Amino acid sequence: MPHIALPENVPGIRSLVLYRPETGQHLYDLAQVLLRGESPLSEADRELIATYVSHLNQCYFCQNSHAAAARCLYGPSAQLVDEVLTDLQAAGVSEKLKALLQIAGKVQVLGKEVKEDDIAKARALGANDREIHDTVLIAATFCMFNRYVDGLATLTPTDPEAYRAMGERMTSIGYVLPQKAQP
Amino acid sequence: MPHIALPENVPGIRSLVLYRPETGQHLYDLAQVLLRGESPLSEADRELIATYVSHLNQCYFCQNSHAAAARCLYGPSAQLVDEVLTDLQAAGVSEKLKALLQIAGKVQVLGKEVKEDDIAKARALGANDREIHDTVLIAATFCMFNRYVDGLATLTPTDPEAYRAMGERMTSIGYVLPQKAQP
Repeated sequence: MPHIALPENVPGIRSLVLYRPETGQHLYDLAQVLLRGESPLSEADRELIATYVSHLNQCYFCQNSHAAAARCLYGPSAQLVDEVLTDLQAAGVSEKLKALLQIAGKVQVLGKEVKEDDIAKARALGANDREIHDTVLIAATFCMFNRYVDGLATLTPTDPEAYRAMGERMTSIGYVLPQKAQP
Repeated sequence: MPHIALPENVPGIRSLVLYRPETGQHLYDLAQVLLRGESPLSEADRELIATYVSHLNQCYFCQNSHAAAARCLYGPSAQLVDEVLTDLQAAGVSEKLKALLQIAGKVQVLGKEVKEDDIAKARALGANDREIHDTVLIAATFCMFNRYVDGLATLTPTDPEAYRAMGERMTSIGYVLPQKAQP
């Protein structure tokens, strides 16, 4: 049961943005620009970074919803998502993306954990400033979302089908406040 | 030196929102609603929660800038800020605010660390849903800002006077994108 009185039967972050749309609007706007706006990183790669950080933060809701979105976006390469969550080094993603995911993993621990060597390694594999920036901000942002969702003990579905449907909506509609997404 | 090419001589979060205003606008809008918008928590108490979490995350820039803002807002009770950072249990803040700061400290570790008992304790001391909500979201949000600022190794002033000036600006102008704050 959630720690505060949230709209019933609404899962995760959606219950929180309905509870307090004044902050929810800016949270969704940030997610939309960060995950769907212009970036040298593909939408699929950005959702994968969000999934990986949510997995490290043990946030079941965010991990499963963003994993579902990443699978939609990767299409025939959807297995990459589970490969990264199982064993990053053995996963079939590019070496550059592995280096960026390692930076995201350092950000998950603490900002200061990102060292010159981590950045140099990513650059040697072709990462540019914007890719490094977007990786760090996505990782930092999910350290926020994960804590907001779990810190208030929001409703967390366990049915995989619920997450598959969320992933499809996040891919087709993007990050739009729930009431605005209704027809 | 920052990990990526940021505007020179601009410290902390301000260099990042100038680098990427598309995300920076939403980050500042979120901070403005969360720390200056309507809330049952005073602006001073909200800045104190931000300061406490930034301290736990070892983010020198955010800790010192928000501590300066909190001192401005507390006025003659400015010493409360250092009391909380030195020894929360011995600090001269209310028992309710201590319970909320303890929840913020749990959020800093991980969302799931906030337990029923933490919430029950805060409620017994008079905290309501919105106070608990705002505490969790402020704590989560600073887990993001701290990681963004330190994860890209932004310029961090060491002169206390620089932070005092920031605190005054954050109190008088609020969270407005740097270029918009210029006359």
